[in-house]
Amino acid sequence: MKVAETFAECRSLTEGSIGLVPTLGYLHEGHLDLMSRAKVGNDQVMASLFVNPLQFDEVADFDAYPRQFERDARLMKQAGVDILFAPSVEEMYPIEPVTRVVVGGLTESMEGAHRPGHFAGVATVVTKLLAGLQPDRAYFGKKDAQQLAMVIRLTVDLSLPVEIVPCSTIRESDGLALSSRNIRIPAGDRDRAARVSKGLFAAAELAASGERDGQVLERAALEYLIGIDVEYVALAERATAQRLATLDRPAFLATAVRIGGVRLIDNVWLEPNGTSDRGTLLRSTSILYEGVN
Amino acid sequence: MKVAETFAECRSLTEGSIGLVPTLGYLHEGHLDLMSRAKVGNDQVMASLFVNPLQFDEVADFDAYPRQFERDARLMKQAGVDILFAPSVEEMYPIEPVTRVVVGGLTESMEGAHRPGHFAGVATVVTKLLAGLQPDRAYFGKKDAQQLAMVIRLTVDLSLPVEIVPCSTIRESDGLALSSRNIRIPAGDRDRAARVSKGLFAAAELAASGERDGQVLERAALEYLIGIDVEYVALAERATAQRLATLDRPAFLATAVRIGGVRLIDNVWLEPNGTSDRGTLLRSTSILYEGVN
Repeated sequence: MKVAETFAECRSLTEGSIGLVPTLGYLHEGHLDLMSRAKVGNDQVMASLFVNPLQFDEVADFDAYPRQFERDARLMKQAGVDILFAPSVEEMYPIEPVTRVVVGGLTESMEGAHRPGHFAGVATVVTKLLAGLQPDRAYFGKKDAQQLAMVIRLTVDLSLPVEIVPCSTIRESDGLALSSRNIRIPAGDRDRAARVSKGLFAAAELAASGERDGQVLERAALEYLIGIDVEYVALAERATAQRLATLDRPAFLATAVRIGGVRLIDNVWLEPNGTSDRGTLLRSTSILYEGVN
Repeated sequence: MKVAETFAECRSLTEGSIGLVPTLGYLHEGHLDLMSRAKVGNDQVMASLFVNPLQFDEVADFDAYPRQFERDARLMKQAGVDILFAPSVEEMYPIEPVTRVVVGGLTESMEGAHRPGHFAGVATVVTKLLAGLQPDRAYFGKKDAQQLAMVIRLTVDLSLPVEIVPCSTIRESDGLALSSRNIRIPAGDRDRAARVSKGLFAAAELAASGERDGQVLERAALEYLIGIDVEYVALAERATAQRLATLDRPAFLATAVRIGGVRLIDNVWLEPNGTSDRGTLLRSTSILYEGVN
């Protein structure tokens, strides 16, 4: 695996088709799954590692974000990554950036409503990575469904010659969607955190049995969240991230909650025929907890 | 010369280094100069021809914009263009675009203040062309100095791997900066239109003789514009397009006026040592007027 610290060096290392996996580091099995998919579909896998200050709406969240370069580089190498792009802040932002990529419409509800500036920060850095690294494909997790809708839309709107490949959510054995933030959930709150996915799965079961009413599906998930600080539960159209009254097109049922001081998001992808993608459960403890008491 | 109607076809035609000249068509010697510079600096010259609805703040201006594909294609071929990118509206905007590239700070004064939405439209379509066509260099006229500052900044901020090459303004023999809009200036208003560049040149002379005070330079240009509808005359820093009180760094002195119902912009580039780039005068009548009357 080669490590490149500049866009130019990174581009100079590429041969054949390139699959990019953008990350903020502190990898878990969700990232490794994206890399293995990129490995299958391309001649070379490129992964980026950059904790982007632009997309953190809370300074405390940015500061608390775990940074473990050696660990991440080792995991990437094991996962078959050919090129690791690990830019400095100076390479990413040689001067104070004044340009923002703003995706209207898709980014105002749900995550956009609760994290001001977050999506413009993500859209801008994703545009930088796609325009500056010129991959053929880029791999994103379905867990960030609204972000995924935004990324797909911006590649169309900005004519970026890249295919965005959505990949299923990977979950811990109790159903909790993998996130680098999971290590911050207090042990006593784990059971409550696991209820998030249980509620979404219950709603997916209801859809499988024929239910198409958005409010009924949302309420089915909400029932599992009693006593939890819920920011939203929403059925949304997959392409536009707009609230959906009826499951009559590709959609996702998404939620955001705060448990033990940690903000968690999760979703299930629902099809109008009632089938769903609920993600994949790990059979063992996540690598997130290696070295954590 | 090959003509491509899609981004993908255009990219497939490239060999070696590519110099891009983006145009809205109805070419004049200013465009041809950009193409000859692109010819010298690259293996292949690509030109784009698209009248971008996103950047017209006035529908009447968009509708009135002259469209003459056969003429423009002939001129491009003569200028040595290898690949002409002539996309349909459907190729540029397969769905209603909701993404905008917004460059803060540089776009609020001068043109930005007088043409709401214009710069976001230009920034967005330029990003599409640079990201989608992946040229090595792109050629822009110094006449649109604020636009040029914005384009240079957005390529840095979005990590676009392209070099922006500013090229001197080409002027008609009476000094009027070439613009496709010049053909709409009523004959009786030509003398007044020619006063615009005379005022800028007078200010440049003053700078050459040692004057550095921004207001004095602006007033020198304004003296020539008595009786003309002036939107602004401003000395601005070249990199940031911010108003400059003193000519103590690379700058441009820019103006926008309305004459005979036509909006005209012009500028001279000034260095802190008093030298200037006032552009180049044509010796004969511009090709703009071939076939007019």
